Amino acid sequence: MEGDDNLAHERNKAEFDVNEMKIVWAGSRQAFEVSNRMSRLVASDPVFDKSNRAVMTRKELFKNTLRKSAHAWKLINELRLSDEESVIFKYFMDQPGFLDLHWRMFVPAIKGQGTEEQKQKWLPLANKMQIIGCYAQTELGHGSNVQGLETTATFDPQTDQFILHSPTQTSSKWWPGGLGKVSTHAVVYARLITNGKDHGVHGFIVQLRDLDDHSPLPGITIGDIGVKFGNGAYNSMDNGFLMFDKFRIPRDQMLMRLSKVTREGKYVPSDVPRQLMYGTMVSVRQTIVSNASIAMARAVCIATRYSAVRRQFGSQNGGIETQVIDYKTQQNRLFPLLASAYAFRFVGEWLKWLYTDVTQRLEASDFATLPEAHACTAGLKSMTTSATSDGIEECRKLCGGHGYLWCSGLPELFAVYVPACTYEGDNVVLQLQVARFLMKTVAQLSSGKAPAGTTAYMGRAKHLLHCHSSIRKAEDWLNPAMVLEAFEARALRMAVSCANNLKKFENQEQGFSELLADLVEAGIAHCQLIVVSKFIAKLEGDIKGKGVKNQLKNLCYIYALHLIHKHLGDFLSTNTITPEQASLANNQLRSLYSQLRPNAVALVDAFDYTDHYLGSVLGRYDGNVYPKLFEEALKDPLNDSVVPDGYHEYIRPFIKQHLRSARL
Amino acid sequence: MEGDDNLAHERNKAEFDVNEMKIVWAGSRQAFEVSNRMSRLVASDPVFDKSNRAVMTRKELFKNTLRKSAHAWKLINELRLSDEESVIFKYFMDQPGFLDLHWRMFVPAIKGQGTEEQKQKWLPLANKMQIIGCYAQTELGHGSNVQGLETTATFDPQTDQFILHSPTQTSSKWWPGGLGKVSTHAVVYARLITNGKDHGVHGFIVQLRDLDDHSPLPGITIGDIGVKFGNGAYNSMDNGFLMFDKFRIPRDQMLMRLSKVTREGKYVPSDVPRQLMYGTMVSVRQTIVSNASIAMARAVCIATRYSAVRRQFGSQNGGIETQVIDYKTQQNRLFPLLASAYAFRFVGEWLKWLYTDVTQRLEASDFATLPEAHACTAGLKSMTTSATSDGIEECRKLCGGHGYLWCSGLPELFAVYVPACTYEGDNVVLQLQVARFLMKTVAQLSSGKAPAGTTAYMGRAKHLLHCHSSIRKAEDWLNPAMVLEAFEARALRMAVSCANNLKKFENQEQGFSELLADLVEAGIAHCQLIVVSKFIAKLEGDIKGKGVKNQLKNLCYIYALHLIHKHLGDFLSTNTITPEQASLANNQLRSLYSQLRPNAVALVDAFDYTDHYLGSVLGRYDGNVYPKLFEEALKDPLNDSVVPDGYHEYIRPFIKQHLRSARL
Repeated sequence: MEGDDNLAHERNKAEFDVNEMKIVWAGSRQAFEVSNRMSRLVASDPVFDKSNRAVMTRKELFKNTLRKSAHAWKLINELRLSDEESVIFKYFMDQPGFLDLHWRMFVPAIKGQGTEEQKQKWLPLANKMQIIGCYAQTELGHGSNVQGLETTATFDPQTDQFILHSPTQTSSKWWPGGLGKVSTHAVVYARLITNGKDHGVHGFIVQLRDLDDHSPLPGITIGDIGVKFGNGAYNSMDNGFLMFDKFRIPRDQMLMRLSKVTREGKYVPSDVPRQLMYGTMVSVRQTIVSNASIAMARAVCIATRYSAVRRQFGSQNGGIETQVIDYKTQQNRLFPLLASAYAFRFVGEWLKWLYTDVTQRLEASDFATLPEAHACTAGLKSMTTSATSDGIEECRKLCGGHGYLWCSGLPELFAVYVPACTYEGDNVVLQLQVARFLMKTVAQLSSGKAPAGTTAYMGRAKHLLHCHSSIRKAEDWLNPAMVLEAFEARALRMAVSCANNLKKFENQEQGFSELLADLVEAGIAHCQLIVVSKFIAKLEGDIKGKGVKNQLKNLCYIYALHLIHKHLGDFLSTNTITPEQASLANNQLRSLYSQLRPNAVALVDAFDYTDHYLGSVLGRYDGNVYPKLFEEALKDPLNDSVVPDGYHEYIRPFIKQHLRSARL
Repeated sequence: MEGDDNLAHERNKAEFDVNEMKIVWAGSRQAFEVSNRMSRLVASDPVFDKSNRAVMTRKELFKNTLRKSAHAWKLINELRLSDEESVIFKYFMDQPGFLDLHWRMFVPAIKGQGTEEQKQKWLPLANKMQIIGCYAQTELGHGSNVQGLETTATFDPQTDQFILHSPTQTSSKWWPGGLGKVSTHAVVYARLITNGKDHGVHGFIVQLRDLDDHSPLPGITIGDIGVKFGNGAYNSMDNGFLMFDKFRIPRDQMLMRLSKVTREGKYVPSDVPRQLMYGTMVSVRQTIVSNASIAMARAVCIATRYSAVRRQFGSQNGGIETQVIDYKTQQNRLFPLLASAYAFRFVGEWLKWLYTDVTQRLEASDFATLPEAHACTAGLKSMTTSATSDGIEECRKLCGGHGYLWCSGLPELFAVYVPACTYEGDNVVLQLQVARFLMKTVAQLSSGKAPAGTTAYMGRAKHLLHCHSSIRKAEDWLNPAMVLEAFEARALRMAVSCANNLKKFENQEQGFSELLADLVEAGIAHCQLIVVSKFIAKLEGDIKGKGVKNQLKNLCYIYALHLIHKHLGDFLSTNTITPEQASLANNQLRSLYSQLRPNAVALVDAFDYTDHYLGSVLGRYDGNVYPKLFEEALKDPLNDSVVPDGYHEYIRPFIKQHLRSARL
């Protein structure tokens, strides 16, 4: 059967032009071509084989990742890949390793926080990778709260040096990727102390290891923090710990763009606006949202194809069973996730635009839109990564028992993805930042200041607080204005209700702390509105290709209406819609599922993922699942011998009843 | 600090008698003593060490599990442990292995489906473990749908044998634990064919391996299905595949209690009622519910203790940070899970009673309560295992970054727990069985037949369909009758609404299939009502110990009110409560969290788990988290050397810029 397309009948059902959808998904024809070319380049190179990761020991896995990284860097240079190409190339390698931290954290930190002089000195070394860097911020006892870091950098005017020191065990750096075994350098965050005064947390460029023999420098203790979630996943990465014992670095290795320490030890803040730093955060979180759509799409692609291959029940007379994708329960769980993948893709696209916009404004010293941009990227990072983590596990369950096999790809995808809920800001903490911003916006409504950007809808508070949804029949739920209004009214009413409840407390902070859970929900409601509104905006644009727009429309309303069902309590308790209107939404949702059904496989084909990237026997493009499951099983080392190691010591004594006298 | 109790200040805050709570949790003083003794017996034996599982290869892990199993069996015999004790002993070993399948599936199958003659022949061998058995039902292409199995057992009258055969690749047995490498025998399910007629699926005792050299018998192909989710978890188990090539067994190895095949090949059903088989199902699922409470409690114990140790934010002047357990967002996520652990415990206790009751009735040929008992155990299995899987992952997230470390114990607990959502009936399929039963019950209401057992409330349909909740103030939500009425009204109204919507379809089956998602939700509502009502019933009984009852009351209402918040859409759309009443429930919930807070650590101490069983650095009894995290890290093989293997080949060439000429 090899070579046959077991899913051809599904692909033939599609009512739209898949190739055009691929371009919509990628963002542009050019982006599609790069992504298509890079993913195939990785997939065709045997060095990037991923199939044996589960049976490697940690040491083998780590060494294999070093090999992949070196090979990748060599190829990137040999093929003269552009920056864009090499980012995508590394993405499709699908193997966490030190390259990520060096390029995504170490280099940008120097670029963003270094002076011109510092950049001239360090960037050429880093760009050629003559030094390999990581980003040492998090400590054993301190994660999200950067201001709570304990590591100190004390200026010693006698030697013109900083003395880096870890005063406690909890002050050990803990978690930085690439730190444990690879990095020669790090950007280290520590409390700056000059003349006995604590100036808070600042960044320092610190050499960690000898450039000749790779041993840690005297005064530095360093190692790997041990095994993490999953069989593979981030275990390929040397997340590390680091302790300083009065380790000295020259004064000019403090990153001094934002503030300096002079030769005399005087602390001098520069006139560079602090807000510039937020631009970087917007950029990083925008990437995370974009990656959420990729990960969600990957899980959904596997679950959709397998749901079309798998048959279960429904046969009355010994005939062929029903494809599980035809069950409404399966559709009800799977299709909203498929819709979410597309929804997150488009909001990610919009965030890219937002980042450009913010950057341009920052360059012109216009900081007006920054708080709103900051809140909305924080919220979207939180909302999309939480939904994606849950979505991956849901896809695994949708694959039934076989989803539990490592070779389904889903356990590994889950294990490698879930840290996104924690890194770059814990998802709950981030949603509270959104809520704080919303409370501020609500408070200013009466002052006549018009809210902007994603909070512009709050300017129509008078209408939104009292309007009644005009939904009369199921099809009304396909009316973009009516759907938007429901999401806007719900979000606004939840925010206003929080604000009113806050007023009941004498102490605002105490009230905030008491109402945290409600505030998080108000934040989520706002973020879901953003995603829905950006999807609707996408539909209003020019979309080419036969049937493409129609499919996107279905996905958009599946996304919106499933949210209404999932958060029905919000919509009903704010009187945004009535139970009858909710029931109409459910009817419409079921009808949308039926319309999506024949297009499901083609809609996941549009992600253009290679079998290499998917890394899943269940999600294979050709649907040839069962024979390949057997092939995978036979590769397991336990199958090297028919009679297992341990038989004579531990099984035979049972059967021969020698167990009492056996030595165990 | 070793030996100090870092959580003593938390334990001192407790407002109840922890030792009495331990007995309530265990079910009785005797049950507590057995559990306490067995868990310490396992914990003190170095053979049962679990700390190194993450760094073992699959082969090492498997062999180590063989060793543990043999050692356990030896101890059980040497110490003459009772059946009850040995079950609990094996549970605290916390290591999936072939013993589980032999005792929980193979032996009970022979007991339940074998004739007296067959039991006399096989049980002594199995009881002494001279033969080791597994349960071979699931096939590569067929899971939940047992009627879809393809393996055939064709009677050959000439030789008086059955010929077992796997006609296709999808008919291979796939998943049975203990099959891949260990079992000498299996109960195999296959379609019985006599005289060319298919009599459906029946069980057969089949020898798989030679008792002298352990090699598979001719005609049998057998092996391990490969790596599964997690780093450890079920990878210690040889889940296997099995194919028959016209393999012959004597006729008397068909399990013949329910139906026979005569020497002539005549198929003769016995007069033993088929319903007896359901008793076994009730028993198995009752155990699963009880295990759900244990797993949920384990995750909650880890997250609660660590939330009391961990401090984050909240310090204004460089002072000590706030314990994360003091944040309402943390309480809002953690305390309902703590309450769920207790709730599942008590409903599990009640299921034990139900099983005894059903068994007694079956023995008296009273099958009247069986459908209701069957539906409610199926539903509770589904509801509690889904909630527990989600709860474990939520607890992992509640531990922040460190929850992602293998040594937090939570990744492994998740990986080993999640199959409970799939085995013994997929959770969605099971919930549909509940829904079918509910639809039948609703249909019979007008006939005057009074619904019994957990559906008795439906007999008050007239009242429940139209009543208005009389909640006026937050404290009313502590009134058991008012809370019960809300859950009853919601469940009934959802069931009736489904029934009414079904009527709109001409074809009932088509309607059922169209409304699957709503039906699942109606099933869940019914199951949640059962859990709430059994918790309330528990409170009505005699509960000893200072403050114990009061704590249980808090937990009961936290469980109920968090469900109202989570499923608010159900309660509002059925007009069971008003948005104002919902808001009062939230206020009451927050107040309950505050009351629970000082008791949280003591409430998880009441589970009486050893540090060995918890297997978590974050959940240690003494709270000595940070130094122990370091100790764990240093054990990782990557830390064997300062300069990692692979440095010369793959890191040095970067730094020395030799990468272009390096051989990779």
